[in-house]
Amino acid sequence: MHIGLVGLGKMGGNMRTRLRRGGIEVTGFDNNPELSDVESLEALVAALPTPRAVWVMVPAGAITQSVVDQLKGLLSEGDVVIDGGNSKYTDDAAHAASLAEVGIGFVDCGVSGGIWGLDNGYGLMCGGEAALVERLMPVFDALRPEGPREEGFVHAGAVGAGHYAKMVHNGIEYGLMQSYAEGFELLTAKDIVTDVTGCFKAWTRGTVVRSWLLDLLVRAMEQEGANLPHIRGYVNDSGEGRWTVEEAILESVPMPAITASLFARFASRQDDSPAMKAVAALRNQFGGHAVESFGGEASVAEAGPSSGTGSTSH
Amino acid sequence: MHIGLVGLGKMGGNMRTRLRRGGIEVTGFDNNPELSDVESLEALVAALPTPRAVWVMVPAGAITQSVVDQLKGLLSEGDVVIDGGNSKYTDDAAHAASLAEVGIGFVDCGVSGGIWGLDNGYGLMCGGEAALVERLMPVFDALRPEGPREEGFVHAGAVGAGHYAKMVHNGIEYGLMQSYAEGFELLTAKDIVTDVTGCFKAWTRGTVVRSWLLDLLVRAMEQEGANLPHIRGYVNDSGEGRWTVEEAILESVPMPAITASLFARFASRQDDSPAMKAVAALRNQFGGHAVESFGGEASVAEAGPSSGTGSTSH
Amino acid sequence: MHIGLVGLGKMGGNMRTRLRRGGIEVTGFDNNPELSDVESLEALVAALPTPRAVWVMVPAGAITQSVVDQLKGLLSEGDVVIDGGNSKYTDDAAHAASLAEVGIGFVDCGVSGGIWGLDNGYGLMCGGEAALVERLMPVFDALRPEGPREEGFVHAGAVGAGHYAKMVHNGIEYGLMQSYAEGFELLTAKDIVTDVTGCFKAWTRGTVVRSWLLDLLVRAMEQEGANLPHIRGYVNDSGEGRWTVEEAILESVPMPAITASLFARFASRQDDSPAMKAVAALRNQFGGHAVESFGGEASVAEAGPSSGTGSTSH
Amino acid sequence: MHIGLVGLGKMGGNMRTRLRRGGIEVTGFDNNPELSDVESLEALVAALPTPRAVWVMVPAGAITQSVVDQLKGLLSEGDVVIDGGNSKYTDDAAHAASLAEVGIGFVDCGVSGGIWGLDNGYGLMCGGEAALVERLMPVFDALRPEGPREEGFVHAGAVGAGHYAKMVHNGIEYGLMQSYAEGFELLTAKDIVTDVTGCFKAWTRGTVVRSWLLDLLVRAMEQEGANLPHIRGYVNDSGEGRWTVEEAILESVPMPAITASLFARFASRQDDSPAMKAVAALRNQFGGHAVESFGGEASVAEAGPSSGTGSTSH
Repeated sequence: MHIGLVGLGKMGGNMRTRLRRGGIEVTGFDNNPELSDVESLEALVAALPTPRAVWVMVPAGAITQSVVDQLKGLLSEGDVVIDGGNSKYTDDAAHAASLAEVGIGFVDCGVSGGIWGLDNGYGLMCGGEAALVERLMPVFDALRPEGPREEGFVHAGAVGAGHYAKMVHNGIEYGLMQSYAEGFELLTAKDIVTDVTGCFKAWTRGTVVRSWLLDLLVRAMEQEGANLPHIRGYVNDSGEGRWTVEEAILESVPMPAITASLFARFASRQDDSPAMKAVAALRNQFGGHAVESFGGEASVAEAGPSSGTGSTSH
Repeated sequence: MHIGLVGLGKMGGNMRTRLRRGGIEVTGFDNNPELSDVESLEALVAALPTPRAVWVMVPAGAITQSVVDQLKGLLSEGDVVIDGGNSKYTDDAAHAASLAEVGIGFVDCGVSGGIWGLDNGYGLMCGGEAALVERLMPVFDALRPEGPREEGFVHAGAVGAGHYAKMVHNGIEYGLMQSYAEGFELLTAKDIVTDVTGCFKAWTRGTVVRSWLLDLLVRAMEQEGANLPHIRGYVNDSGEGRWTVEEAILESVPMPAITASLFARFASRQDDSPAMKAVAALRNQFGGHAVESFGGEASVAEAGPSSGTGSTSH
Repeated sequence: MHIGLVGLGKMGGNMRTRLRRGGIEVTGFDNNPELSDVESLEALVAALPTPRAVWVMVPAGAITQSVVDQLKGLLSEGDVVIDGGNSKYTDDAAHAASLAEVGIGFVDCGVSGGIWGLDNGYGLMCGGEAALVERLMPVFDALRPEGPREEGFVHAGAVGAGHYAKMVHNGIEYGLMQSYAEGFELLTAKDIVTDVTGCFKAWTRGTVVRSWLLDLLVRAMEQEGANLPHIRGYVNDSGEGRWTVEEAILESVPMPAITASLFARFASRQDDSPAMKAVAALRNQFGGHAVESFGGEASVAEAGPSSGTGSTSH
Repeated sequence: MHIGLVGLGKMGGNMRTRLRRGGIEVTGFDNNPELSDVESLEALVAALPTPRAVWVMVPAGAITQSVVDQLKGLLSEGDVVIDGGNSKYTDDAAHAASLAEVGIGFVDCGVSGGIWGLDNGYGLMCGGEAALVERLMPVFDALRPEGPREEGFVHAGAVGAGHYAKMVHNGIEYGLMQSYAEGFELLTAKDIVTDVTGCFKAWTRGTVVRSWLLDLLVRAMEQEGANLPHIRGYVNDSGEGRWTVEEAILESVPMPAITASLFARFASRQDDSPAMKAVAALRNQFGGHAVESFGGEASVAEAGPSSGTGSTSH
């Protein structure tokens, strides 16, 4: 089989390598000529046998939209476009409908595995018509991990279902990471525990919490030191965590742990919390509790209390 | 009526003033001689008519314990001790039992109102035997706000019930403050909203969220500027918020909003979050996401990705 | 001043009454002829002096859209439409732009106060051009509570700012209600507390948590009994709580307490929690913990444990 | 090596089997004579070579306390007691101190692995003096999974550190389970996703969220059906989740995701939520929103609204 691959960055580049290792012929295009196999999208399309299959692996949103729009003009009836990027599932229906106008098929495919996917294989979740998915199975089989197909691949449902499943996967990922992280912080805080790295490492084989993320956390602690002293607690978030919570709201699904994980990331990026400024101001107002001002001096509200020993009740 | 009052700090001093305004004779003792009416606890006891009533208004825990222990040696059968401090309700049963050994009664009384209580009156929640509570009603009536007794005073139940009610009151207080604060942060973040102080002020009369805390927040914003620029988002917590959540756990009561409020205070006091360091380290491990190190340089894990345009999926 | 009012339901009907009490002439239209002053929207427009002002007070979304569209065809250049319903702030810009095409002005106005607003006045938050807001001040003054204008009214900012402020107001409302409710549940659970209604009532004058919502909760407990025995813990949510959390996500604002309040409502409407089914299934899998099945019998996974006294560790 | 093992229930029985498989001689005692190797604790002690080692594997709290107390009277100087149950770490210091009075050593050991530990091995976290831990290494090596020792065993620190690490392990476990469960609920709710079991299964090899718990969830879905139709969403909690949150409060560690997981379990066991009754009552009071009463009829507060089409704002 021979497919086109648009986007040869972190993920796309590794996927090209894995596909070729798996016997799939790949013509790749990237705006960066050092990475690209061909000079243009037109050249990529020209290089493919019909019916063509073009896998799009570029940033979600406007860039994916632009590539899909260009492919709509370049491909022919019976061809198929696969969006393997981190698109929002609601984009998929629009892409599918637009391409269907000219007889081009569409499959969305969520891809998990990160930088490790090259060697371990990628977890794949796809959505779309069964016939199209079937046609692409050699590609999916080359990308997914070795072992039973169903342990690394799913045809999750209609168009959008692949990205939806990937979105939920990432939401779960947020919750898992936060859970380990909260445990990490508590263990680190306790003086009687003198080997925190050892604790996490001891969980990697026989325990209920063993997982790949746990293995990675142990790896990080071994590389960076038990307290991760050189790493700042500043965490970005991609769109998929946010979308997961938005979907939870849309579907009236309580999602407290994953949402807490998202909010912890928001908070990690704040130098000072506006909300906590308001709480500090309130406590100062009713209780005369000193607030910390940036000049370093504490101040109290006008109705400040007299000094003296004794408790304050509010 | 004539009572003794131990502890003349922020709260105790104001309470002495309000009691005297209300026609109660008060002999106060404080370790600070400038505040004290008498030279010693012995002198305080000697000054009171029998059966004596001594109101203890000192920091909860060891200091309250010490005062109760001393009073046990100084008072006589039929006297009564009132603990008006922020004691944990579990201390009350112990104090009551200890004093009962020598025939001294005990009433616990949660006091709310902060520095405003002097003029507005204090909300009072007490626990203990009905006969003792009844004997102390003139004191409670002088301290509580004007108006119907039941709108500022409750005999909540057995020994400990007063402090329990006060503890829950403070837990609720955490949740209320956090709610206003989260709304404050969101309004402040939105560019189309140009008068945030005006919004909060407009809520103070006719809306569902009107409250005394709202009035205070408006007051703070008017004093400090709409964005509270000089106040740091650093918030301490007293024991009662923690106890409320501990009780929720003990009683299997879900308490997500109040607990979130407590955790937000914990987080506000961290320069860097150990948990978020772990999340950042994990993202670096699996996705090759750059982490921010304290030296200012970003680093990636050994298995870092190739550069290029394209999306990363994990 | 003479205005038109479209929508005479719960809110609109009361607002008509309050406006008339305040000296504003009102021509009201409602699909329900028993409530309506005129037979049609056309008749309403015909009855108004120019430049006209028409206040729309109908359900947000499609119905508001329909009324705005109709008014666009009926009103003239220089007239103004006020949307006082619970519209999403993003609708406002669209309405303003559409009406501007034919020279009609637009002001959005969030209204708080519920069924009590008739007598207490309504809290008002509006957005739009200053000149239009100024023209409508007699209407706002009649609707808002007595007292200083700024304690019941705000011109919050540009078009959309009024509904945005109202949305945040409602988000805060969710958090406040949840906070009282969590405290209610904990107090109710504790055996030493024998007068829960009395506790809440004692907070209504002198304490930090006093508020209008607290007054209402006391009223409910007095009407329904301390444990609210006849009320089911089933709570709907309007759009504004959801929008508040969605905005928090959009603006990267941590909002744990308000979000917890929203999720608690979602959960209150579930007969059984799918998520908790999954947790129960997991515990059964790894620990051999019995699950409760709907047939009433407990079952264990195949790899079930032997019986015997002793602890289970997982 | 030859050790005593007290408690031969679910965990203890399997551990005896695994120890014997690993070449450790075990004399076990259980109150259930069908499970026990000897008739009494005295007989167990008599059967062991000196210095003796007795592993206690009984329910935490009073029963563990009782066994430790009895062993204090039966064992001799130089012997060692290991508590492998789910004890609270604060009990360990007390047990160690009590046994030290008569020269008996103490090691605490958290054990993870559930019913699968028999075949997979148990994750072990222990606390205590290095010399005692060293003496017991053959026992630990027989119990832990095959592979490098440090991937299934840790000497975490001083007395109590083993149970502390196990407690944190379980707290993390709560968060992991809740995260998968929230994702499960959302996927299940979405109509475009038609193969939810397939999605979870596709994550088991190549994705970031792969873990042993994920494998178990897939196993449960395959056994019970994708929607787990026969399993009730009712989840108990053991002490360790509660202790983890209590420790977080003690150490001022924000722990939102794990705490959310604990509260979700509390809520899963409530037929009706008292807190949500209060919220429903409040909405009824201020908005005239109908409440659902148990008799099935909706009621509104006295100040109910007039009927009519139109929105309600509060």
